[in-house]
Amino acid sequence: MTTQKGYDEGYEARVRDSFGRQTFMTSIGARLSRVEPGHVEIELPYRPDLCQQHGFFHAGVTGAIADTAGGYAGFSLFPPESSPLTVEFKINLLAPARGEKLVAVAEVVKFGRTLTISDLKVFAVAKGQRTLCATGLQTLMCLQGRPDELKSA
Amino acid sequence: MTTQKGYDEGYEARVRDSFGRQTFMTSIGARLSRVEPGHVEIELPYRPDLCQQHGFFHAGVTGAIADTAGGYAGFSLFPPESSPLTVEFKINLLAPARGEKLVAVAEVVKFGRTLTISDLKVFAVAKGQRTLCATGLQTLMCLQGRPDELKSA
Amino acid sequence: MTTQKGYDEGYEARVRDSFGRQTFMTSIGARLSRVEPGHVEIELPYRPDLCQQHGFFHAGVTGAIADTAGGYAGFSLFPPESSPLTVEFKINLLAPARGEKLVAVAEVVKFGRTLTISDLKVFAVAKGQRTLCATGLQTLMCLQGRPDELKSA
Amino acid sequence: MTTQKGYDEGYEARVRDSFGRQTFMTSIGARLSRVEPGHVEIELPYRPDLCQQHGFFHAGVTGAIADTAGGYAGFSLFPPESSPLTVEFKINLLAPARGEKLVAVAEVVKFGRTLTISDLKVFAVAKGQRTLCATGLQTLMCLQGRPDELKSA
Repeated sequence: MTTQKGYDEGYEARVRDSFGRQTFMTSIGARLSRVEPGHVEIELPYRPDLCQQHGFFHAGVTGAIADTAGGYAGFSLFPPESSPLTVEFKINLLAPARGEKLVAVAEVVKFGRTLTISDLKVFAVAKGQRTLCATGLQTLMCLQGRPDELKSA
Repeated sequence: MTTQKGYDEGYEARVRDSFGRQTFMTSIGARLSRVEPGHVEIELPYRPDLCQQHGFFHAGVTGAIADTAGGYAGFSLFPPESSPLTVEFKINLLAPARGEKLVAVAEVVKFGRTLTISDLKVFAVAKGQRTLCATGLQTLMCLQGRPDELKSA
Repeated sequence: MTTQKGYDEGYEARVRDSFGRQTFMTSIGARLSRVEPGHVEIELPYRPDLCQQHGFFHAGVTGAIADTAGGYAGFSLFPPESSPLTVEFKINLLAPARGEKLVAVAEVVKFGRTLTISDLKVFAVAKGQRTLCATGLQTLMCLQGRPDELKSA
Repeated sequence: MTTQKGYDEGYEARVRDSFGRQTFMTSIGARLSRVEPGHVEIELPYRPDLCQQHGFFHAGVTGAIADTAGGYAGFSLFPPESSPLTVEFKINLLAPARGEKLVAVAEVVKFGRTLTISDLKVFAVAKGQRTLCATGLQTLMCLQGRPDELKSA
């Protein structure tokens, strides 16, 4: 569905570097499991400290990895000297997020110079079985001329 | 804005008890700062492990406390033997979530037997100054006859 | 993507009958071009009275046929004695809705006894070329025991 | 809630002129009942050709006037040589849209150079009684340097 033609060759390094600086993704134990132009996946193994009141993954956690995957799906197509910004996202929770891990899968639906739209899906994997547990849409803005890495420190 | 008339008197205990069982809220250091019928607020002090790549609160964290506040705003009006379920939420991120804490403020817009809609706002507090950094809407389902506390087994 | 197994055999008649009673769909010249279980398409030929200020289809028209297609995609799976209700929908407008017609394509993502979620897409067809001009998500409620046709006429 | 300070003095003429060129608004009989900086209201009297299958206003009509009011609430704050574009909107339908008219009320929540966010509400007025029947959020883009009126007059 993605319509981009050209993209910066260093996209994977840029995405992985930026993701690595997101302390919240590290805190919850999320990792980038796939990075392609316009397509990013994030895996999150189950941990008892990421739950809602019934022991399933918290909807906020589901939303967080969906939003992050979508942001990086967009960022993979942005020019090098730019930074991604989530304008908004909407997510429908379709089934309990229960199992040994969650997998967020994001795909750019429409790439634009200023705004990019990503499709978001989250699957719960229980005993190896994948269930779609959330679906969403996200609007991203490309901040031109503002490198995501704010000076080397 | 809320239109409910009657509500269960034990609402605050039920909300606080359920919130206490959300390990994710405890993990990130969130606390319920206000619980009224149809209105719930959650405070989240800044911590360096809750950030995106530029050191601000991660949008997923902003979304998580907004969703949770909205869910409990609804739950405060539900009957005792019921459980809240987020059907979907949508959030617009209006300004960087930077400062010493975030405050999520949720208010029920429409209470219904099956579905309840909450308005979500998140403020970033920096040097005592409040800035609206996110606004959203959430649809909740009331699971009748399923107490939120799944009995001690 | 749809997960429903059984559905009422009279689904197409029920959908076409209900659509025929939507005066607004008739007013704008929309027609049901495809009705399958969990999948509905609506076509809308261009008319100069359906436009925004630059002569393209109005976003409200795009949203209206997307919402209607989604509602009937869900209704096609509902039991006979029931009625569909749009709880909410969200739509991203991706490209100008210009051309000789619009085609709204809706597909049920998750069917449930109470709530059903539909994926919405709208294509603009210009000189026979299809362009995705909108994508959205919709939450529907199934009103049980309330036939959509209120009185036999 | 609006935060803009300065705005173009000709805002009302620009809004009314642009609205007048939206043939769809004219077709359904909608009119601008209030135009202030960052705040726009649209009234739509009941007509039997604007209905869903039970004789209430069609959800697509509700969405259309909400989207239009929000777009013009934003446009009222934009610079003269610009044009508004709806990026996305989300709407929750809270109650049947029944009565002698609908009133859409839109208010800018956050004004920005590129993106502006509007809060949308729609009231159904029946026997003079106002009921909130829909609430939503909308993201707008300001197309700089592209006057809304495409031909110099």
